[in-house]
Amino acid sequence: MTFDFTPLLPAHVPDPAPRWTGFPEYNFVGGHIDDATVPVDDLRAAVDRALAREGADLATYGLQSGPQGYRPCREFVARKLKTYCGIETSADDILLTSGSLQGMDLVNRLLLQEGDTVIVEESNYGGAFTKLRALGVNMVAVPLDEHGMRMDALAAALDDLAARGIRPKYIYAIITVHNPTGTILPLDRRQRMLELARQHGVPIFEDECYSDIVWSNERPPALRALDDSGMVIHIGTFSKTVGPALRVGYINADWPVLGRLVAMKSDAGSGALEQMMLAEYCPDHFDAHVRRCNGMLEGKLDTLIEALDEHFGTSIEYRKPPGGIFLWVKLPEGVGTARLAAVAGAQGVAVNPGPEWSLGADADNWIRLCFANPPLETLRAGVAKLATICHEEFGVPEISGNVKR
Amino acid sequence: MTFDFTPLLPAHVPDPAPRWTGFPEYNFVGGHIDDATVPVDDLRAAVDRALAREGADLATYGLQSGPQGYRPCREFVARKLKTYCGIETSADDILLTSGSLQGMDLVNRLLLQEGDTVIVEESNYGGAFTKLRALGVNMVAVPLDEHGMRMDALAAALDDLAARGIRPKYIYAIITVHNPTGTILPLDRRQRMLELARQHGVPIFEDECYSDIVWSNERPPALRALDDSGMVIHIGTFSKTVGPALRVGYINADWPVLGRLVAMKSDAGSGALEQMMLAEYCPDHFDAHVRRCNGMLEGKLDTLIEALDEHFGTSIEYRKPPGGIFLWVKLPEGVGTARLAAVAGAQGVAVNPGPEWSLGADADNWIRLCFANPPLETLRAGVAKLATICHEEFGVPEISGNVKR
Repeated sequence: MTFDFTPLLPAHVPDPAPRWTGFPEYNFVGGHIDDATVPVDDLRAAVDRALAREGADLATYGLQSGPQGYRPCREFVARKLKTYCGIETSADDILLTSGSLQGMDLVNRLLLQEGDTVIVEESNYGGAFTKLRALGVNMVAVPLDEHGMRMDALAAALDDLAARGIRPKYIYAIITVHNPTGTILPLDRRQRMLELARQHGVPIFEDECYSDIVWSNERPPALRALDDSGMVIHIGTFSKTVGPALRVGYINADWPVLGRLVAMKSDAGSGALEQMMLAEYCPDHFDAHVRRCNGMLEGKLDTLIEALDEHFGTSIEYRKPPGGIFLWVKLPEGVGTARLAAVAGAQGVAVNPGPEWSLGADADNWIRLCFANPPLETLRAGVAKLATICHEEFGVPEISGNVKR
Repeated sequence: MTFDFTPLLPAHVPDPAPRWTGFPEYNFVGGHIDDATVPVDDLRAAVDRALAREGADLATYGLQSGPQGYRPCREFVARKLKTYCGIETSADDILLTSGSLQGMDLVNRLLLQEGDTVIVEESNYGGAFTKLRALGVNMVAVPLDEHGMRMDALAAALDDLAARGIRPKYIYAIITVHNPTGTILPLDRRQRMLELARQHGVPIFEDECYSDIVWSNERPPALRALDDSGMVIHIGTFSKTVGPALRVGYINADWPVLGRLVAMKSDAGSGALEQMMLAEYCPDHFDAHVRRCNGMLEGKLDTLIEALDEHFGTSIEYRKPPGGIFLWVKLPEGVGTARLAAVAGAQGVAVNPGPEWSLGADADNWIRLCFANPPLETLRAGVAKLATICHEEFGVPEISGNVKR
């Protein structure tokens, strides 16, 4: 007889995941990157050199580097943070994690409990919403304009919470290549955000997971670079530049925070081989690699936009972002993207519906399209198919391709 | 001014970890293995082949295998479970984790909440105690004899809990190479344990993290192999055989449990490169490798025992275990091993004091000595130094080496 676990499960436990059946044919979801950009030969050489030199260290937890992760990898992360976004730090204040998602889980476990309040950008990474909801945390949404989070709205939200005696646990900020809009918050707003956060005693949780992907290869200093009080917790990743399957992310924070995260990281370290490989690969290759990827990705985005213009015409609106791996697209009023995503998904076209990526009341007719992974032909064909499905379900776009429907 | 996070932290948050300062000179703690046994050249060849063939798949989360981990690695785990301990399963019901510790955390998160009760072996993996205490879970300890967990005591504990209306969430069982005693529970007790668990409707959480390390290379079927109801959740790891820094563990359970663990694994997968390397390395090499390691480890254990006999003489008691990487040693009454561990630790000799590895009232004068990592000379010198320190602090052993003190 089958043992029934159900009576033993706490209330918040999710249902079993559906069995994984492979990627959809036209995959516009997920933070995947382009297969062709994985620098396989250089990675092979790097991991081989690292193993030849230090492979025997796999015998000890944390190699010879302790619980924060392989020290040469942390040293590269510290240099990267300095060079790319102006953060002065050292390997001592870096914790390597299983992707930036483990970093997010750790920061959430450190600061949050049920009933707490956090401030988030109104449109946002859907996974962050999922994690915060599972924790029973209240989210206060701050709207964005074409430059990113609106500081007048942030000030109003903080004032309102203060008036109600609520001190939010953090402001969650994906401000350098925002998800899903791709905006990069200008320097003056960054300074204003820090000022507001300081006034209200609210830390900032800065998530720079997409921030290396900028067409111009230029970006403003990180919030953590502009602050000297330790109030900013910064996370990032190699997922979007070298490969998401590697699961190498990092947290940078002052020791009162980082030391607690180290104490709470209960998995005895993240995979060391990836860390060894990256430490060997990155110093000589990372910069050129990222520039090459960025050029290629902007080209892909242009292809996506071309295909959207061709198949959806003027029925859609979007702003070409300065970087990232996704486009945030507004469909005509009345197109319910939750239904569109379900119908398209059943036909092999996967898109993120707006309501999963935004707390805003007006997100129903938005979708997020990830463009980094599908080959150019698949991008084009997928957009064409999506337009057909959208036309069939909602009557828009009226014209698809050259064919009047 | 430094930002003060303290008022924002929930009550249960730990203090910052101490800064890591390297391994102690004489390191008898931690589940490390022998540097010399890491099959570096074969691993280099394996990871190179895997990357050459499938390196571009690093571009997608979970490679082409989905959230449960690299399928060929899961396929090897399924074969290993069948061959080594009789479990009939398939890659579909394996979840790869960041070491078995992440597996333990996931199972705990699935089943436990504050105030719950679990049944544990009285002497036990200290890290399990730490995790359960952090969750606010009550532990009911079942004593062991020279064969492992006592079934009369387990029956009594279950009856007592039932009489009090308490249904424990699981029985935690490291019964194949128990930590710290190294015992292997005989088949008849395994059958009895399942019978008792079934009667009381209590699942079993079977932790086989050391079970490949058996001098005879023979072991009884796992509890999960003996049960067909799905009540046994089984975890294991490659840490003790190929290398702990790799962080590749696994969970095997029926889908109502495993599917929920997949849904709760919020890190978007564990490091794929290790999984690719192991999937390539293990089919041809794992079995011979483990036999070689086991021979070498038994030799190290014999050296440790020789050194203990030489320096501690008859003042100590121990049973040579049939496998594992540690020896559980009884010092004379009156030797407080918490103090011994502190004093020895300050002099570069790290040991696990009994009270951290047992809930028993009589564990004060026990220590756990891990012997897999230190070279033979270090084992000998460390034992000599420990004997000297113990003599200085507690007056025992009376004789150290050939010198009367």
